[in-house]
Amino acid sequence: MKAFMDENFLLGTPTAQELYHDYAAKMPILDYHCHINPQEIAEDRKFDNITQVWLGGDHYKWRQMRSNGIDEYYITGDAPDHDKFLKWAETLEKAIGNPLYHWSHLELQRFFGYHGVLNRRTAEEVWNLCNEKLQQDSMSVRNLIRQSGVTLLCTTDDPIDDLRWHKAIKEDPTFDVQVLPAWRPDKAMNLEKPEYLDYLGKLSAAANVQIRTFEDLKQALVARMDYFDAMGCRVSDHGINYVMYQPAAPEQIEAIFAKRLAGESLTAQELAQFKTAFLLFVSKKYEEYGWVLQLHYGCKRDNNKAMYAKLGPDTGYDCVSNFAPASELTDFLDAVNSKKTLPRTILYSLNPGDDELIDSVIGCFQGSECVGKIQHGSAWWFNDHKTGMTKQLTSLANLGLLGNFIGMLTDSRSFLSYPRHEYFRRILCDLIGGWVENGEYPKDMEALSEIVKGISYNNAVRYFGFDLETK
Amino acid sequence: MKAFMDENFLLGTPTAQELYHDYAAKMPILDYHCHINPQEIAEDRKFDNITQVWLGGDHYKWRQMRSNGIDEYYITGDAPDHDKFLKWAETLEKAIGNPLYHWSHLELQRFFGYHGVLNRRTAEEVWNLCNEKLQQDSMSVRNLIRQSGVTLLCTTDDPIDDLRWHKAIKEDPTFDVQVLPAWRPDKAMNLEKPEYLDYLGKLSAAANVQIRTFEDLKQALVARMDYFDAMGCRVSDHGINYVMYQPAAPEQIEAIFAKRLAGESLTAQELAQFKTAFLLFVSKKYEEYGWVLQLHYGCKRDNNKAMYAKLGPDTGYDCVSNFAPASELTDFLDAVNSKKTLPRTILYSLNPGDDELIDSVIGCFQGSECVGKIQHGSAWWFNDHKTGMTKQLTSLANLGLLGNFIGMLTDSRSFLSYPRHEYFRRILCDLIGGWVENGEYPKDMEALSEIVKGISYNNAVRYFGFDLETK
Amino acid sequence: MKAFMDENFLLGTPTAQELYHDYAAKMPILDYHCHINPQEIAEDRKFDNITQVWLGGDHYKWRQMRSNGIDEYYITGDAPDHDKFLKWAETLEKAIGNPLYHWSHLELQRFFGYHGVLNRRTAEEVWNLCNEKLQQDSMSVRNLIRQSGVTLLCTTDDPIDDLRWHKAIKEDPTFDVQVLPAWRPDKAMNLEKPEYLDYLGKLSAAANVQIRTFEDLKQALVARMDYFDAMGCRVSDHGINYVMYQPAAPEQIEAIFAKRLAGESLTAQELAQFKTAFLLFVSKKYEEYGWVLQLHYGCKRDNNKAMYAKLGPDTGYDCVSNFAPASELTDFLDAVNSKKTLPRTILYSLNPGDDELIDSVIGCFQGSECVGKIQHGSAWWFNDHKTGMTKQLTSLANLGLLGNFIGMLTDSRSFLSYPRHEYFRRILCDLIGGWVENGEYPKDMEALSEIVKGISYNNAVRYFGFDLETK
Repeated sequence: MKAFMDENFLLGTPTAQELYHDYAAKMPILDYHCHINPQEIAEDRKFDNITQVWLGGDHYKWRQMRSNGIDEYYITGDAPDHDKFLKWAETLEKAIGNPLYHWSHLELQRFFGYHGVLNRRTAEEVWNLCNEKLQQDSMSVRNLIRQSGVTLLCTTDDPIDDLRWHKAIKEDPTFDVQVLPAWRPDKAMNLEKPEYLDYLGKLSAAANVQIRTFEDLKQALVARMDYFDAMGCRVSDHGINYVMYQPAAPEQIEAIFAKRLAGESLTAQELAQFKTAFLLFVSKKYEEYGWVLQLHYGCKRDNNKAMYAKLGPDTGYDCVSNFAPASELTDFLDAVNSKKTLPRTILYSLNPGDDELIDSVIGCFQGSECVGKIQHGSAWWFNDHKTGMTKQLTSLANLGLLGNFIGMLTDSRSFLSYPRHEYFRRILCDLIGGWVENGEYPKDMEALSEIVKGISYNNAVRYFGFDLETK
Repeated sequence: MKAFMDENFLLGTPTAQELYHDYAAKMPILDYHCHINPQEIAEDRKFDNITQVWLGGDHYKWRQMRSNGIDEYYITGDAPDHDKFLKWAETLEKAIGNPLYHWSHLELQRFFGYHGVLNRRTAEEVWNLCNEKLQQDSMSVRNLIRQSGVTLLCTTDDPIDDLRWHKAIKEDPTFDVQVLPAWRPDKAMNLEKPEYLDYLGKLSAAANVQIRTFEDLKQALVARMDYFDAMGCRVSDHGINYVMYQPAAPEQIEAIFAKRLAGESLTAQELAQFKTAFLLFVSKKYEEYGWVLQLHYGCKRDNNKAMYAKLGPDTGYDCVSNFAPASELTDFLDAVNSKKTLPRTILYSLNPGDDELIDSVIGCFQGSECVGKIQHGSAWWFNDHKTGMTKQLTSLANLGLLGNFIGMLTDSRSFLSYPRHEYFRRILCDLIGGWVENGEYPKDMEALSEIVKGISYNNAVRYFGFDLETK
Repeated sequence: MKAFMDENFLLGTPTAQELYHDYAAKMPILDYHCHINPQEIAEDRKFDNITQVWLGGDHYKWRQMRSNGIDEYYITGDAPDHDKFLKWAETLEKAIGNPLYHWSHLELQRFFGYHGVLNRRTAEEVWNLCNEKLQQDSMSVRNLIRQSGVTLLCTTDDPIDDLRWHKAIKEDPTFDVQVLPAWRPDKAMNLEKPEYLDYLGKLSAAANVQIRTFEDLKQALVARMDYFDAMGCRVSDHGINYVMYQPAAPEQIEAIFAKRLAGESLTAQELAQFKTAFLLFVSKKYEEYGWVLQLHYGCKRDNNKAMYAKLGPDTGYDCVSNFAPASELTDFLDAVNSKKTLPRTILYSLNPGDDELIDSVIGCFQGSECVGKIQHGSAWWFNDHKTGMTKQLTSLANLGLLGNFIGMLTDSRSFLSYPRHEYFRRILCDLIGGWVENGEYPKDMEALSEIVKGISYNNAVRYFGFDLETK
């Protein structure tokens, strides 16, 4: 029996251990997609207690507490931080097999030096230990990033954002980790939202373009893309229900946009046509800028309207969607590809049943301008665990070239989440090591180390074209 | 190599063995969903031979015999019971990897003390041995239930049922296992069926309510729910193609119902609207009664019309369906939840590809009135095997709190099916034991035994609020 | 650690090894579905170099080269064969976990006696070794087939094919492997294709039937079926997006066909109605001829229009589709079954998420005229690897009788692909051996050898009714 989460955690074979410790563990971290707040980096925030870091905005944990029948008072309510932490500790005990169980203990081990088990009995001890540790300078946001070995991270930003914090960080010579913006224009695309017109007003102001037509909107977006590009942006991101393809003539798109401006309601077909036009336009622009297109789909958001009214979005009420026709996905990619304007693209679906479909689709649109131009993104959100990662990696290996995979990202809102890269690398090395031990790939450490180092770090460095060196 | 189905069957690690033998195996059985006939309990039926018990109504076995090219004469036809058994024995040999192989041998071991292998060569010996044993008093229906350690079971009953057998069992002081009705109003909801009007007549009579409108139907159902509730019912059950949400105004629903009464045919949209209204109504009532809502979906029934004409429903001609939009499922749950009338709910889909979707959906509607209020039901029917159970448990663990799972039910028509609980518990303990041995959860027997005992029995006791004690 | 791809490759237990070496490995090969060119058998073609055999038409390999960013010049372009091979070798290194890695090395071992590893460093050596070997008479097409132990193979042929090469092979007494045609009438069914009318002209000529109506088309098809049947055809094959069921009256079908002849465009509904009628008709005929119906669905083809314009179909631009409603599949099968005209049928879906659905559907339409009348076909194309095969076998075992499975086919365009049968058999024996070692099936070598030999060869011999003996 292996000890609980020791140095060979998840590494089931000697080859897996060798690959992890000798290669994967030594690579830096390139976190090309996350949701952390750049202001907190700029200000080098410190936290008063572990509840602030762990439970301040982590809807993964909130969900589990609700599943445990805990009152919202202890989750997003006004309960004292100490009591919230105790509720989390008793919830965690039941989370056997859940990635939160592993992430929480990895974070306790790596950042707090605590190698015990967090549960009802130890909660008080852990609370005190973590809070004491959090007072140290080594636990400021910048130091958490530094000690995690991060060389570059991309936040997720709205086109109207002035990126002042990115600028501040860039200009600060005492912090040499690159903190780049990523372009997420969902609010400019989602014209079904009640707040859409308000948003257009803000975008007009930010871009200094009066938006009266779809052409105006495109012009405003380009103005902001120029700015993002100048600020070092290399990556876009879209959160969509599914990748749609409902083409329509430019006049139709303008008519739809005009209807929306006039406050009229739109049909589902009109929405899909507008969004198709929007995605076609920005994809083309990304290709011009040399940006990467990230498509996150297969999610149905804000399912609990009562709680949405209280807490807003991203509070733990989203689910997997199962409507994402292969036909529209491929028709969309083909439409962009036919015009030679297909950017490097990463596809993520929240539905694990889409893995093989995606792996077969990406093979249809590769190109010689880049190794692994079209990528199947790392197991995402509800799939971000041993099962989901192993499934994504295996499917990618079965259908494509695993050796070209650009690997992991945290997708996190917390500065303690970098061990998710470690978690991923352990799972990766276990999978590959298992194949080698089973005689399915030769024990050729030259080839294997190149693959492992590539997926851990080097492939992403090359793929995004960041100003970084491979290791 | 492990011996064939010995005491450590499916228990791959020492921790798995410890968890199973020391905890899981010792828990009673709470079979909260099955299809056994309460009359046979009331009358304490005995069986003449093993064909009666095994092949009398078990369409799982019939299917396999048909897959083996066996003539219907030996399946549901007039062949002698002895010959039917021999046909089953030769079919079983080819059923390598099938749960029927394991269930059959578990039943032979536990009830008949036969530890050999059933095949063509041993069929005659097993036939004689079983039939001899079945003559003993210990093999009456009540004694089978008793020796299986069952404390409570819920049958599946139509609203028009007078529940006379439940009453008889309850009043019989010599049998202390609780046998409770469960409410399954499918026939009152499925107005597309040719026999619907006949059924309404019977329901009118049973409820003593003349049904001329949907309002009348609701009144009749409430009358019967009152009766079921008084008879100890705590659980409803619905067998539906998919969970739909097509809301319509009350007048529209009445108009649809009136059309049906007038013998006119209805559109698919009208059917969905009526069923939505029906489900919204009963869900609200279940919440008032404190009943649990069970939704079994993802099934397409009666696919072979020629055989349906001969044998009727539930004879082995159903399949997995793949139409079950996440959007309607979540909209339905949200509609009930928004009115604060969402009862405790268990979701089961016959499509294993829905596992992760369900596990993400249940997390959106939990509540503090109950631990694990919304549950992902145990792997069902075509998924009721090692692969399906492991997948359901793993998905639930990945996305939710496995520790709060209410666990297994037989869903069976046979009194010999209780070893399916043993089968489930072995798989559960193997999964958890494997995690512990792999260092993924600490070997904390206090926490582990609570989890294993909870999933085996205690969680269901608490969840349904039965008059039982946890162990 | 196991050595790389040694004699016990993929055989994880002693029982697996015993089953494979003592039984599976000794069985001949019946390759009932492939895409090899019968002319090359008739002419006993020899190859100049390994690029011709490996990269001449294998779009599986082309895909991976494109995923590696290699220019089309080295894939389907005019680059020297030697350079193409080097590009393939460097691609293969990254294909860890991909079946092409295993297939390539199995082929190097079995046909070329090369037991090393193909990579950038060894590419030159392998190139020379293979090409030298290919000059030997033992490497002619016929000798490759002979030394692979093939007793019979079915090619895939269009109704207009004159089958001259099949005839030539049949009449040649020096080659005793049966090479039979299989009937694939996709071009006669796909009336949405621009080239449809041209095709009808060719079919008219081949059948000597003037095609002016759907009735004429049917008559022409029957004429060709008569010819195929006389030439030994026992198997049909259909490549369709999904199995549809949109019945329409004969007049409607004629009207749709007339519209197409008139060059008018058809609605999606009309296309589905025509195809339904087509499939209903041919299925009935297959049943009369005693042919097997193969339905390959779940594929979306020719997704990259730019590359389609350059290279045409079957060049690596297809993907998994996720639109295949269970309802239409079952309604189609039921419609044919209700008229007692359902032939033996094999269902293959490219979407692995359909496995359990298919295994539940086949159980609804079995019949006593044949053991395992309705089959779930072997893991196909994008699923043709350890994961996909294990999943298909496990799902089939969970839901049906694995013992009656008719097993593997190459589906290949290459004469070096027969080791895919070996690959399949190793995976099969590993799965079954694992169950036995785990106590899930008794170590009864009589039953086990019958199952393994059946799935490897004997079941297919019996199922198709070929003029072959079981072993």
